[in-house]
Amino acid sequence: MQFTSEQRLDSGILEREFTLCEIPGVLWTPVTTPAPLILIGHNGGLHKREPRLVARARYCAEQGYAVAAIDAPGHGDRPSSAVDEQARADLRRAMQAGEPVDEIFESFVVPLVDQAVPEWQATLDALLALPEIGGPVGYSGMTAIGIRLAVVEPRIAAAGLFAGGYVPRAQREEARQVRIPLLFLLQWDDQGNPRQRALDLFDAFGSKEKTLHANVGGHAGTPWFEVEDGDRFFGRHLK
Amino acid sequence: MQFTSEQRLDSGILEREFTLCEIPGVLWTPVTTPAPLILIGHNGGLHKREPRLVARARYCAEQGYAVAAIDAPGHGDRPSSAVDEQARADLRRAMQAGEPVDEIFESFVVPLVDQAVPEWQATLDALLALPEIGGPVGYSGMTAIGIRLAVVEPRIAAAGLFAGGYVPRAQREEARQVRIPLLFLLQWDDQGNPRQRALDLFDAFGSKEKTLHANVGGHAGTPWFEVEDGDRFFGRHLK
Repeated sequence: MQFTSEQRLDSGILEREFTLCEIPGVLWTPVTTPAPLILIGHNGGLHKREPRLVARARYCAEQGYAVAAIDAPGHGDRPSSAVDEQARADLRRAMQAGEPVDEIFESFVVPLVDQAVPEWQATLDALLALPEIGGPVGYSGMTAIGIRLAVVEPRIAAAGLFAGGYVPRAQREEARQVRIPLLFLLQWDDQGNPRQRALDLFDAFGSKEKTLHANVGGHAGTPWFEVEDGDRFFGRHLK
Repeated sequence: MQFTSEQRLDSGILEREFTLCEIPGVLWTPVTTPAPLILIGHNGGLHKREPRLVARARYCAEQGYAVAAIDAPGHGDRPSSAVDEQARADLRRAMQAGEPVDEIFESFVVPLVDQAVPEWQATLDALLALPEIGGPVGYSGMTAIGIRLAVVEPRIAAAGLFAGGYVPRAQREEARQVRIPLLFLLQWDDQGNPRQRALDLFDAFGSKEKTLHANVGGHAGTPWFEVEDGDRFFGRHLK
């Protein structure tokens, strides 16, 4: 893991960009260390420095967590394949036309999950070797990656999952094996994430402690207080 | 309004019992006044001094709210009618037998709502005349009473509603007229409150800001952190 830039924010948070092999990422560390770690996953073409993600990460770091975000394969600073771009264009077209999208969705999300999860695990190995990071680890972000991580990675102690309407068949099955505490976030009117599928997925999780938060509005309309609620969720399980 | 007992708790909270005509109630006031007011409704035979309700009320008062609870007609210290008791026994029997319960439920909840809402309004008149109470008012409790109050009582600025699976037809219709911010609490495995009906009710509310919180477990299994979440919800709207 190579740090490539470093910035001390007015809040005292240290914000550093890094690369780990071909994976680019950002690490925020709080004033007091060692700190528990939150991994922030993102999806749908968002860059690891997308403003809303950065605001969430800085807020969490101010609450005492180390926070890491990496660009998923084909996202942010990483080269995207022509095949993926075509699949995403097909998905948008099919959604607008009201056609079934499951097969298109599977065609690019299944390989994304298969590649992203080992990358998160490698990133976790590197991060946990740093002296400023200690204690349990949480994941916050895209549902499909979070489910697989929760199943295969015992170092993940709690997860906040977002937008579970479209999730590959494999992860819908794996949901029953998830045992860690979950906070499952749903935008009630998210046209890109069918509500009933998200509710069915929440029902399927094997976790004894799972909480659903649903708010009115579309995909990008999650209210800021859910960031604060997420912080308290992790506070109950990581601190 | 007559205060009939007074106790200063170690936390500094003043806890007073009162009667207003035939309505018995309890008022908790915080150290700093005047304070915004939360009305705590309850149902199903629970007494205004039920330990969980008292713990919630004291917690809210410690966060700076005045909190009032009254015994609904036929509940707590108030005489219950033989007709109501028969209806509740019929309801339990029908639920255990898996029979339809809507008609039995309507037979005693419709008159309860019709009588309880004007009582809450009279209580509100009396409470808002006290110098230690000021500012906006929230309601937290039984869904059916909360819906009617939200529709007819403009002094209610926000509501936390619990257990919306069985709600009279009249309040299911009135839900569309509700415009205030809502926190709607659902126990995912509450056998006495059908989940799909509760989700349909959440969908029906006319409020622009409405949030659903669902947790695993039965009717009485709501985790304590929901009390804290409720406090933050009211903090956004009453303070």
